[in-house]
Amino acid sequence: MNFEEKKLNSETVYKGKILTLNVDEVELPDKSRSFREYVRHSGGAAVLLVKDNCVLLVNQFRYAYGKEIYEIPAGKLNYGENSEEAAVRELEEETGYRAKLIKMFDLYPSPGYTDEIIHIYFAESFEFTVQKLDEGEFLNCEFIPLDKVLNMIETGEICDAKTVSAVYKFISSLDKKK
Amino acid sequence: MNFEEKKLNSETVYKGKILTLNVDEVELPDKSRSFREYVRHSGGAAVLLVKDNCVLLVNQFRYAYGKEIYEIPAGKLNYGENSEEAAVRELEEETGYRAKLIKMFDLYPSPGYTDEIIHIYFAESFEFTVQKLDEGEFLNCEFIPLDKVLNMIETGEICDAKTVSAVYKFISSLDKKK
Repeated sequence: MNFEEKKLNSETVYKGKILTLNVDEVELPDKSRSFREYVRHSGGAAVLLVKDNCVLLVNQFRYAYGKEIYEIPAGKLNYGENSEEAAVRELEEETGYRAKLIKMFDLYPSPGYTDEIIHIYFAESFEFTVQKLDEGEFLNCEFIPLDKVLNMIETGEICDAKTVSAVYKFISSLDKKK
Repeated sequence: MNFEEKKLNSETVYKGKILTLNVDEVELPDKSRSFREYVRHSGGAAVLLVKDNCVLLVNQFRYAYGKEIYEIPAGKLNYGENSEEAAVRELEEETGYRAKLIKMFDLYPSPGYTDEIIHIYFAESFEFTVQKLDEGEFLNCEFIPLDKVLNMIETGEICDAKTVSAVYKFISSLDKKK
């Protein structure tokens, strides 16, 4: 059975700095009509950098949750930028590390209401240059041992989806090499 | 250093059926001012159900991505509902399985612009009753062998954050029991 939902009308109800909100009228598989509310996002790029068996994490205040959380370095794609360029740029801005990246995987954070794709890379080689935070950006960088990061995931201290997925995927790839 | 961002003003720019969009004016740690655009969401609930070493997945059309994707059964919390009630309800509605659940973990899907928490449960015991899809909901349920699901994650066929995280966390807990 084909479950496709066909776009009938599309309305942009909000266009902001980091996201656009659409409400589209759609035709469902049974020919009935409904509405889909969803965020249009330029996409995210994130980097897993492991040095001497320690993971580079940033600790920053996330307003939506009202607290500081740990995440792998990440940011959103600028207009016209590809995901690898964005990942290289965000990593260096946030942490001061200039890296050569290889693609790990794509992640769909919450398919019910956003079209964001988070493009996740692994830092194959890197050198430290200088941190260049954007205006209004405040964060701490920390190298945390991989087994401690895993423990922080197991205990729920790390909840961020891209971080949880990237760390597990990395460990899974290590296990395969054994 | 304290990175807290203090709310100065809050404006709801859109209030829809599944999400609310806020634009808040905030004071940053250096006393400068900025705006935060973010989705307010009631929260999600998802269930990992494993039967005879096969994972119960639903395959449904996700309008934001314009295609069908595989996910563990999930849905959003209704007003006043706790996450476990929502997980039990959504699992039975979508798949016909009535289950006794234990909490696995919470996931923050995209901390830059949503306050959604996805509450992820594991089905400890279950029985089949009857599928009761919501009006306008179309999906297929499939039991897929765990090693095949892992392969679909490794190859990028499964990209959904809650599914990737839950499957890896489950495998990690199995490894620990060994």
